[in-house]
Amino acid sequence: MFEAAELGRKIPKAKYESELTKLRGRLLQAHFALRGTKMPVIVVVSGADGAGKGEFVHRLNEWLDPRGVDTVAFWGQSDEERERPPYWRFWRVLPGRGRIGILFGSWYSEPIIRRVYGETKNAALDTALDRITFFERMLAEDGALIIKLWFHLSKKAQRKQLKELDKDPKTHWRVLPSDWKHLKLYDKFTEVSERAIRHTDAGHAPWHVIEAADRRYRELTAGTIITETLEKRLKQLAAAPKPAPRAAAKAPPKDSLTILDHVDLSQKLTDAEYKEQLEKYQSKLGKLVWAANAKKISTVMPLEGWDAGGKGSAIRRVTAAMDPRLYRIIPVAAPTEEERAQHYLWRFWRHLPRAGMVTIYDRTWYGRVLVERVEGFATDAEWQRAFLEINDFEEQLTEGGNVVVKFWVHISKDEQLRRFKQRQQIAIKQYKITDEDWRNRERWDAYKAAVNDMVARTSTEFAPWTIVAGNDKKFARIQILKTICKRLEAAL
Amino acid sequence: MFEAAELGRKIPKAKYESELTKLRGRLLQAHFALRGTKMPVIVVVSGADGAGKGEFVHRLNEWLDPRGVDTVAFWGQSDEERERPPYWRFWRVLPGRGRIGILFGSWYSEPIIRRVYGETKNAALDTALDRITFFERMLAEDGALIIKLWFHLSKKAQRKQLKELDKDPKTHWRVLPSDWKHLKLYDKFTEVSERAIRHTDAGHAPWHVIEAADRRYRELTAGTIITETLEKRLKQLAAAPKPAPRAAAKAPPKDSLTILDHVDLSQKLTDAEYKEQLEKYQSKLGKLVWAANAKKISTVMPLEGWDAGGKGSAIRRVTAAMDPRLYRIIPVAAPTEEERAQHYLWRFWRHLPRAGMVTIYDRTWYGRVLVERVEGFATDAEWQRAFLEINDFEEQLTEGGNVVVKFWVHISKDEQLRRFKQRQQIAIKQYKITDEDWRNRERWDAYKAAVNDMVARTSTEFAPWTIVAGNDKKFARIQILKTICKRLEAAL
Repeated sequence: MFEAAELGRKIPKAKYESELTKLRGRLLQAHFALRGTKMPVIVVVSGADGAGKGEFVHRLNEWLDPRGVDTVAFWGQSDEERERPPYWRFWRVLPGRGRIGILFGSWYSEPIIRRVYGETKNAALDTALDRITFFERMLAEDGALIIKLWFHLSKKAQRKQLKELDKDPKTHWRVLPSDWKHLKLYDKFTEVSERAIRHTDAGHAPWHVIEAADRRYRELTAGTIITETLEKRLKQLAAAPKPAPRAAAKAPPKDSLTILDHVDLSQKLTDAEYKEQLEKYQSKLGKLVWAANAKKISTVMPLEGWDAGGKGSAIRRVTAAMDPRLYRIIPVAAPTEEERAQHYLWRFWRHLPRAGMVTIYDRTWYGRVLVERVEGFATDAEWQRAFLEINDFEEQLTEGGNVVVKFWVHISKDEQLRRFKQRQQIAIKQYKITDEDWRNRERWDAYKAAVNDMVARTSTEFAPWTIVAGNDKKFARIQILKTICKRLEAAL
Repeated sequence: MFEAAELGRKIPKAKYESELTKLRGRLLQAHFALRGTKMPVIVVVSGADGAGKGEFVHRLNEWLDPRGVDTVAFWGQSDEERERPPYWRFWRVLPGRGRIGILFGSWYSEPIIRRVYGETKNAALDTALDRITFFERMLAEDGALIIKLWFHLSKKAQRKQLKELDKDPKTHWRVLPSDWKHLKLYDKFTEVSERAIRHTDAGHAPWHVIEAADRRYRELTAGTIITETLEKRLKQLAAAPKPAPRAAAKAPPKDSLTILDHVDLSQKLTDAEYKEQLEKYQSKLGKLVWAANAKKISTVMPLEGWDAGGKGSAIRRVTAAMDPRLYRIIPVAAPTEEERAQHYLWRFWRHLPRAGMVTIYDRTWYGRVLVERVEGFATDAEWQRAFLEINDFEEQLTEGGNVVVKFWVHISKDEQLRRFKQRQQIAIKQYKITDEDWRNRERWDAYKAAVNDMVARTSTEFAPWTIVAGNDKKFARIQILKTICKRLEAAL
């Protein structure tokens, strides 16, 4: 695969300079045009040691408008990063829409290095590469332009390069001890890199392998690739027809049977039973949360349900059992400007708990397949692929040491009406009833169908749904407390 | 001071419940009204162990609209926090405008505990309290409402409380080993707390000492304080006259002599001198930055200067010498929505480097006393108090292990005109010239006066200004490189 990048290509100085001047003008123009779009651009800079990656990152920063670029070098991991799923550190630095993110190193570095050093086998490498493919496709489908550059050096060229850099006092600092170590592993590195490139060379995020021995050649080539890819995409964006105004989903037939129809809403507890069990499970939960904290097991608790289903009061029964230092509630409202500039999962990634802590999401990423689907805020393609995206997200949470306990609080349509009316009577609860609640109620059947799909497609072995029988608030609260206890006990 | 909070106050259940219902309605209404304002509300919950602080935080969360509250418990410090000045962890969780932040523990905990444990003397405690006073006043002047609650228990009541909590399996978890230790230190704790309260009981952020032995009394009292303070302030806000449209500052007399008139702009370097010194200082800087990294010394480099002064190209000469893994450039453009919801220094705090790293700010917090002053975006009171705020900020940076190297790149008015015209000629530089640049140029003298004040009032021993003679770009770049090297050498 790399043979085509060992041909000894060079560019003479005069040609380089005249071409570069033209190229920089175009690149800068494209960068300005980018600003007005909703497209984030991710430039991944990878390749051999001594191949001038860092130098190229410098150069690229010189060429672009610095106000529209975020350059990130992945180097070391903070405990805040180590205490969360591995991709958290990537999510937190993704460029926003209209910006360019230059990633020096990236999600490729660790899987490749670990394989080269023999810490993993090919199977683990492939799993890691699958995750990368999924991640990149997800970003691409969300509108990101991903440009991946691989700077290649032949073994001979690499040795020469490192020696030269090392000799020159001006560049000596650029050679790290690990670079020499990697040179010894050149053949292994090449083999693993080829595998990585092959597995992840997708249409939505193709690799560009660049012969890197000659500085002028590699920089002009890389610069041209970035410029042309960007120009082409901007042209496509400009030519794309304006998306048709989205219509709310058609209501499904009223008699369609869903998973919700099987919930026994008649289940209830007497006051005495409730009181006794509340004490029992709150006391238990309080201890379990501390035990999980000691073992650095985190808990992510996504809570969804019908309006007036009793989510808020259930959350209070859960948090009443926990030390306030251990949990955070994230109420999910309209996204902020910084959140809107990112993939829809970004704003949930950013609030993930540190090791041993609890995050309760009051409304969640499932908004994508519920309200966004039903109201037509998301296109069919968007909400349809969300199931996979969400399953991947929750799998990463689980692998990263989180217990994911998710609830749909179910009530009957009649019960909802009763509660809406009741709320309107009580002064301090009036704020809880809005016109939106009444509008949502009109779409009850559409939501029911959406919930059915959601549960069917995202109830996984690592993150199963619990459908809470919510007509009796007491029963619902105990069911939730019990479920969390059970899941935590299993994890401990 | 605490005698008034040991009177044995109690509230019977019936009264509690009827009053609470009324209170909750009012509180919630105030909370909704808050949403439409630009006022952040900070509720500090402090006091004795076992005084029901955590319980009250729960309760308050129950009473408020959860979507408008951020509850933060300060507990443990991450390495990302430890590697920055101590207040970084507070800045990162401050509530935005229109929101309530409940701080369980706060900037008070550490100074008090350290003094109680004998790790510090009164002098250090007082210094810490002065910083708190300054911080709170700064937030209050920026529009924040700060409500500080101190839950007090007599020694007898504290012992009783801890015993009861400990005995009951439901609340046993709420008693920490450190709580018993603190009980033994009760008298010392009382003495230090009194000192802390006395020193920080300011009009802009008064303390409310609450007798905490009776749950109903303390909760109703604390709830009433919060409600009434909030209501009163909202009323004031509503009644306040709309601020008059701000006018741009009047231009100062043209012949006023400033510090900039003393800069020898004729200084220059030949090409040969430049080349030699560039190599020398870049090589030096590269090594120094690694050495600083090894010693965990961070560098903050704020860069200001006239439009077309050559900041950008100077930054490139500086970063060319550094490993891209060690530095970040923060180009300061218009603040985002999340940034606008905070004090103006917030968006600079958020980008502070981790230990051993470098952050270059391309335009800085000095915007407050430059463009915001000259264009009238900030009121006189705002920019006038900014000098003190900035000095405090930079002092915290220095104390937190940062070298602060700040530059004003100075050029003559004629030289600026020459460069503006030149930029308009060159295709790839045209983007650098905007109408705003021409407008700023018309206010040259006003800016000059503002720069003079800025340098006079913020050139401190820990963060001195360097005025760069920028007419000759070569001279300017070397001056900047040299200065950074000198400052780093001194710090190492």
